[in-house]
Amino acid sequence: MLSNLAPDMALAERVLETLRERTADTVGVTREGYGAGEEVAHALMRDEGTELALEMRNDHAGNFYLTLPGADRSAKQVMIGSHLDSVPRGGNYDGAAGVVAGLAAVAGMRRAGYTPRSDVTVMVTRAEEGGAWFAAGYPGARAALGTLPPENLEYIRSDTGRTLAQHMRDLGFDPDAVRQGRKELSPDNVAAFLELHIEQGPVLEAEQIPVGIVTALPGNRRHRWARITGEWNHSGATPRRYRRDAAIAASELAYRLDQEWAALDAEGRIMVCTFCTLNTHAEASMSKVAGEATFGLDVRSPDQATIDEMYTRLDRIVADITRTRGVTIDLGPATRTVPTVMNAGVQAGLASAADALGIAHRSMPSGGGHDTSAFVQAGVPAGMLFVRNQNGSHNPDEAMRMEDFAAACAVVTRWAADRAG
Amino acid sequence: MLSNLAPDMALAERVLETLRERTADTVGVTREGYGAGEEVAHALMRDEGTELALEMRNDHAGNFYLTLPGADRSAKQVMIGSHLDSVPRGGNYDGAAGVVAGLAAVAGMRRAGYTPRSDVTVMVTRAEEGGAWFAAGYPGARAALGTLPPENLEYIRSDTGRTLAQHMRDLGFDPDAVRQGRKELSPDNVAAFLELHIEQGPVLEAEQIPVGIVTALPGNRRHRWARITGEWNHSGATPRRYRRDAAIAASELAYRLDQEWAALDAEGRIMVCTFCTLNTHAEASMSKVAGEATFGLDVRSPDQATIDEMYTRLDRIVADITRTRGVTIDLGPATRTVPTVMNAGVQAGLASAADALGIAHRSMPSGGGHDTSAFVQAGVPAGMLFVRNQNGSHNPDEAMRMEDFAAACAVVTRWAADRAG
Repeated sequence: MLSNLAPDMALAERVLETLRERTADTVGVTREGYGAGEEVAHALMRDEGTELALEMRNDHAGNFYLTLPGADRSAKQVMIGSHLDSVPRGGNYDGAAGVVAGLAAVAGMRRAGYTPRSDVTVMVTRAEEGGAWFAAGYPGARAALGTLPPENLEYIRSDTGRTLAQHMRDLGFDPDAVRQGRKELSPDNVAAFLELHIEQGPVLEAEQIPVGIVTALPGNRRHRWARITGEWNHSGATPRRYRRDAAIAASELAYRLDQEWAALDAEGRIMVCTFCTLNTHAEASMSKVAGEATFGLDVRSPDQATIDEMYTRLDRIVADITRTRGVTIDLGPATRTVPTVMNAGVQAGLASAADALGIAHRSMPSGGGHDTSAFVQAGVPAGMLFVRNQNGSHNPDEAMRMEDFAAACAVVTRWAADRAG
Repeated sequence: MLSNLAPDMALAERVLETLRERTADTVGVTREGYGAGEEVAHALMRDEGTELALEMRNDHAGNFYLTLPGADRSAKQVMIGSHLDSVPRGGNYDGAAGVVAGLAAVAGMRRAGYTPRSDVTVMVTRAEEGGAWFAAGYPGARAALGTLPPENLEYIRSDTGRTLAQHMRDLGFDPDAVRQGRKELSPDNVAAFLELHIEQGPVLEAEQIPVGIVTALPGNRRHRWARITGEWNHSGATPRRYRRDAAIAASELAYRLDQEWAALDAEGRIMVCTFCTLNTHAEASMSKVAGEATFGLDVRSPDQATIDEMYTRLDRIVADITRTRGVTIDLGPATRTVPTVMNAGVQAGLASAADALGIAHRSMPSGGGHDTSAFVQAGVPAGMLFVRNQNGSHNPDEAMRMEDFAAACAVVTRWAADRAG
């Protein structure tokens, strides 16, 4: 390996700033999956790829690939990838940092005149923020791997009312091939997949460590459209025993489930439980007892048994509240992903690269789910590298320091070069 | 008293139906206080008053009066009154039934050729549903009595953005006279005030009694714009100990205060406690921990000490949650009314009238507040008669039976004739 091999951080910083400028919203950035913001970001990658003379192509689902050709074109490729969509008014780094890290790595190889043995490909997935745009989890990555359930194509993007299939077709891609399970990527043509991502929580910052090597991704179970139906009544004139109060039923459910989480947390079980939304119906107003409330519940854990345990407890609480408060509780459709353990070889390779570079690191589970889980589940050796980040993610205040990003990109570049040979 | 003296129920039913037709919304009726719906209703009363050759006038605040002149014009008048505004998409009877009962009584007197000794006046108040339109409580009635705090004139109607004073002036009334405390009504010119109203709860229906004689009106304390501020975070990646979750803080507050109510209820304390609205911020979405939530709280009791006790407990819970969850809780401005006991003579007179007519009745506290409280507080002998009603009030499904309304109107007519002499 060349001694001057290093990621092109000038390119990386410029691309991140350009992305921010071109997709700025009232606060933060908005890059809609299979929509305007994501298109702007993909177009920028195409420009950068042209500049670097990389091979480029889209697959049937609109994922975009920038390849630095290796000496042996028949060898399985090494991939570095992430997504360019964001949550609405989110931060600039969630997703984009991973794509730009890949670009910085291959740009560094180009500039150093380094030709790896196998191809090194930067993959730009689509609509990873499935939770924000479609109910589907990782539709782009799973479509590339031929594992997206066809019914997910009919999921509707909340802000456009159009299905995932319509969005794909409108951009010139081929949802029928997705439906048929076409595999663009598989263990047969991918040697390893690595995703760099900002840590979405506060752990690295609290422990003053720049990078984390991910051990596992959580599974989750989500109910986005849960509904409690009680009875509308006059708030002054309806004695306690005659009430069927949806607002208090929702509060009791949320509070009691949170207490169950506190108990599991105290036992050391790794999980999170979040009532992301909780709302009385739009008709609710002062002097009414609320007859309807809705909520969105998100339970995640790297341990499936913990998720199942929470839902056992939830079912018991739901039955209890239904009985005592005279309301009906409809959790609505669930979306589920299963926990996934990161490839041991990728974890070891990342640790070796960081050690060689003298960069402090720790192993840690991920709190969020990521495209990488789709690769693991499809049998591709895959892993993730976290970068320390302030102020969490999915908000406009994400604040990754460029020195931390540079350290992480150095690890990525070293790992890719080692792996590609 | 004439043996053929009876309320004109044909007129009453026709007026109620006309009101419903003219102020129908997508569901139920909407009659905005100092707005379009209330104006339509007042215009209808003017037409009916003209037909009945009643004396009519507005006061400085836009309350409307229809007077059947008595034999002694210098005697203090007997008043029957209520309001014609409604909550948005509310029911047709809340308020209107009381006005129409007064109209049916004086129409019955006219048709029977009965001239009372003193004037009998039907009063149509303004904007009694203060909670729905303005933060002000009973602005019309209190303005008539010279007791509306001048600062209430600056309260803003939520759907128009215009102040109460602007609304009055736009309709040709005189907010300056309100500001100066002009008294249109007082103990010096009102012998007694009676308000008929649908029961807004389920008690009379459950006990199969057509009318209730109100003993007391609750006081209340309301916080319409309470706000909990925490921190926006990624729902997957933020461990429990790093969270400042506004949604769970709101749920805990609502649930724990409800448990305090349950305890006081079990002790037989008469009160209600309602989280009328409870909402995560519009930015809340799946995969975020909510950084902000709002709620509206309504506590009522005919016993001031009970209200105070609930707020003592609320303050303790707020301090506790603020400390344990790292959020700030701002209850925002409070509106308050004090409990009021109905005049004993009016209660006795209503019981006598019902007994004379063979109509079953019971005494009961009111759950809701009403214009009548303003009369009691101004020293006018005042009381209320409840009519059995199905499905509560403040919703489009209010369902007063006409036979119950006829019984109640008979009591009102008898009482007014007795009282006017």
